[in-house]
Amino acid sequence: MPQKTVYLGPFVHTTPNRDLDICESGAVGVDEQGKIAFIERSVSQDGSYSPKQGWESAKVVKIRGQGFFFPGFIDTHTHAPQFPNAGLFGSTTLLSWLETYTFPTESRFSSTSFAHRVYSRVISRLLSHGTTTAAYYATVHVPATTLLAELCLKAGQRAFVGRVCMDTLSPDYYRDASADAGIAASAESVSAIRALDPKGDLVAPIVTPRFAPSCTSPAMHGLAELAKRENVRIQTHVSENDGEIALVKKLFPDSEDYVDVYATHGLLGDTTVLAHAIHLSDREVKVLTETKTKVAHCPCSNSCLTSGAAGVRRLMDAGVDVGLGTDVSGGYSPSILEEARQALLVSRHVAHNSGGERAKLHVGEALYLATRGGAKVLGLEERVGAFEVGMEWDAIRVGLDEVPEEGEGERELEGPVDIYGHESWEDKVAKWVYCGDDRNTLAVWVKGRLVHERDGKTSNGVNGTS
Amino acid sequence: MPQKTVYLGPFVHTTPNRDLDICESGAVGVDEQGKIAFIERSVSQDGSYSPKQGWESAKVVKIRGQGFFFPGFIDTHTHAPQFPNAGLFGSTTLLSWLETYTFPTESRFSSTSFAHRVYSRVISRLLSHGTTTAAYYATVHVPATTLLAELCLKAGQRAFVGRVCMDTLSPDYYRDASADAGIAASAESVSAIRALDPKGDLVAPIVTPRFAPSCTSPAMHGLAELAKRENVRIQTHVSENDGEIALVKKLFPDSEDYVDVYATHGLLGDTTVLAHAIHLSDREVKVLTETKTKVAHCPCSNSCLTSGAAGVRRLMDAGVDVGLGTDVSGGYSPSILEEARQALLVSRHVAHNSGGERAKLHVGEALYLATRGGAKVLGLEERVGAFEVGMEWDAIRVGLDEVPEEGEGERELEGPVDIYGHESWEDKVAKWVYCGDDRNTLAVWVKGRLVHERDGKTSNGVNGTS
Repeated sequence: MPQKTVYLGPFVHTTPNRDLDICESGAVGVDEQGKIAFIERSVSQDGSYSPKQGWESAKVVKIRGQGFFFPGFIDTHTHAPQFPNAGLFGSTTLLSWLETYTFPTESRFSSTSFAHRVYSRVISRLLSHGTTTAAYYATVHVPATTLLAELCLKAGQRAFVGRVCMDTLSPDYYRDASADAGIAASAESVSAIRALDPKGDLVAPIVTPRFAPSCTSPAMHGLAELAKRENVRIQTHVSENDGEIALVKKLFPDSEDYVDVYATHGLLGDTTVLAHAIHLSDREVKVLTETKTKVAHCPCSNSCLTSGAAGVRRLMDAGVDVGLGTDVSGGYSPSILEEARQALLVSRHVAHNSGGERAKLHVGEALYLATRGGAKVLGLEERVGAFEVGMEWDAIRVGLDEVPEEGEGERELEGPVDIYGHESWEDKVAKWVYCGDDRNTLAVWVKGRLVHERDGKTSNGVNGTS
Repeated sequence: MPQKTVYLGPFVHTTPNRDLDICESGAVGVDEQGKIAFIERSVSQDGSYSPKQGWESAKVVKIRGQGFFFPGFIDTHTHAPQFPNAGLFGSTTLLSWLETYTFPTESRFSSTSFAHRVYSRVISRLLSHGTTTAAYYATVHVPATTLLAELCLKAGQRAFVGRVCMDTLSPDYYRDASADAGIAASAESVSAIRALDPKGDLVAPIVTPRFAPSCTSPAMHGLAELAKRENVRIQTHVSENDGEIALVKKLFPDSEDYVDVYATHGLLGDTTVLAHAIHLSDREVKVLTETKTKVAHCPCSNSCLTSGAAGVRRLMDAGVDVGLGTDVSGGYSPSILEEARQALLVSRHVAHNSGGERAKLHVGEALYLATRGGAKVLGLEERVGAFEVGMEWDAIRVGLDEVPEEGEGERELEGPVDIYGHESWEDKVAKWVYCGDDRNTLAVWVKGRLVHERDGKTSNGVNGTS
């Protein structure tokens, strides 16, 4: 159980309106359950801070030098077994990429020792980048999928873990034997993961049909029933690639469009996350809005696989909840900070090509998608994604480096962000978003528990926590 | 003077045909002048390497673990004084960005102490990312510009340093007083920089009209004459932004197009680098080809400032020499490795939107642009950009981390690239390009001199050099 703690110093998060909210001098009290008990916004930082009644013996974690507390990142869509392929996609697009890189690698997770090696690394990586919650696709293998959930729980990462269901148009060496076999294995996986964390405090199962082309109609119907019966969330892919969309049209000739395939199989709703959603028609967007279906925007992956550029503004304007997904190994980076950056860049391509100025995201919006937006996508908006009383302390401590006044030394180049001193608070946040990486993530907490800490020091000699 | 050295281990570079050339087991002998004296491609790496005659007492630098030697990166376009603004551009586009962020910051370089602080950091940053050659824009200030050249020379970085000329449509607080005053100051800057390194071994001046909108016709004519008289190279910008292009059309109504403005002022030719070149007509591309004018492709900057996506394949197919430029602070990253990544991503947006499959760059091509292509753009192709006998040893030592077989620890997360062991050599290079950063650049040499070394260790306990 974490110690009662007061986090003292600047904190930054986003508002429900997708703006930055910067508190330059705050105190956040976190209780033994990891819940935020109080927030003060104008606190003396000069050492004379006098704790509230009942908090006199609480631990104090204070920001020194340049830095701030920020909500933990939420990765609404990534594939844990594909991390060994990060950066490997050549010139492929979705369907050729699946055949060439993805299916062969995912099939290796019949070995739980290989799974242990990869999944341990994946979780360490994500935590080091400040990802406190992740929605993971695993593979078809039940034991390796359960292991992923176990490792998340052990590391203290909040996670949805989904056994992938795929019973058609997949290679013989890597697929479910039948719709029934796939549904049964998914049911088994749901039970096994739920048994690890019965209340779903940190880890929960998620029903995961791979995507319409690799699921038969009976499989999709069965998975929808499973999700409803067991009250678990659903994740899948939609409208990523032109070839994929054409294939879906051919496979499901009676459906109006790609979104309609999922609608008619009972797979849409406010507990469903669809990744990508790049090439949707107005009708499809309307269906997502009406069904309150959520979207995981994966701009890095979409650029890498030549999938196109999703118009996030259009989705948000239609009232669709959107979060960010790294979609490794379609995307190459495990970092949601990098994904926020890519969302900003891709929105500028959309703006230049067709969307106009309004299509551009600003830094606050990208950070909203990375935190509060992601929480909404995964149904966690009451618990994480921002700093509010009653929410849980999923947070990172960001450190930034000051450029020395005189001369230069190798030692000063620890982190990638350079603060010169002329920056406003908004500037500092923008510099972190565009230039920062895991070296700026000095400490990470989930539900009040410290789950990652950099052992190095920042250039100004400040420890990660103190 | 550097010690005679044999570099032993795998090396990777690109061919003139823009393909990767991977030598898994090489030896490169570098003499006291920093020149490559011999290259052997099938050398025993097991410790029994027997040196050639005359090289028995040479120092040996050996790759241990995962890694390879690679040519130093070449940044064909960046703005040293804008580094304090890296990441700060908000929702601006070129012209509003200049007014809001760039001119106010550049004007501060009337102070040489501020210049010293910034330029020291810039050079350290670029070297830490493996940039062994950079073409820098400075500011209008002669003393600060000379200081930049001095600091490059001291740090051992190869550089072209240009005093910026701008005598119109710029704010009163930051512009040349007249065309003549600007030309005279640029001439003074050329002399001062040449005096530092008379043979141009490392550092050379470069004539730098900011861009057509901020230069009068007399200023451009005068700068062209200066460049010709003093035999120095020229750098400027072209066709970056729609508003800029419209402005040029209005300012130079007698010119056929943007490229024609420079052509009629004598500013094109094989010693000229034009940055951006995004929205060129077929006629303009033809003129660049005919005049052998070079292009600096700056995809990160182009995305950030909503400038559009340059079709590099089209330029290369037309026979135009292209290199990469970080264009800080239009771009946010000082890294040419990141720029190579962005070139790959932007080429995929071009492919998706209009260019088709052929528009896509592959990893080898992006690395070609980052090294050999950049060398051609700056007229250094006989000296650097690849490993060939007679060329100079501008190189980086790349280190990659192996994922441990069992378990996981914080200590293993030193670098961002994960090698699992199943990767081909092409895979390893791709992983470095997509996932790597300065933590993978363990050592950097220019002309045989060690100019940067990470004092940390890689996960497998290997020192940067040994």
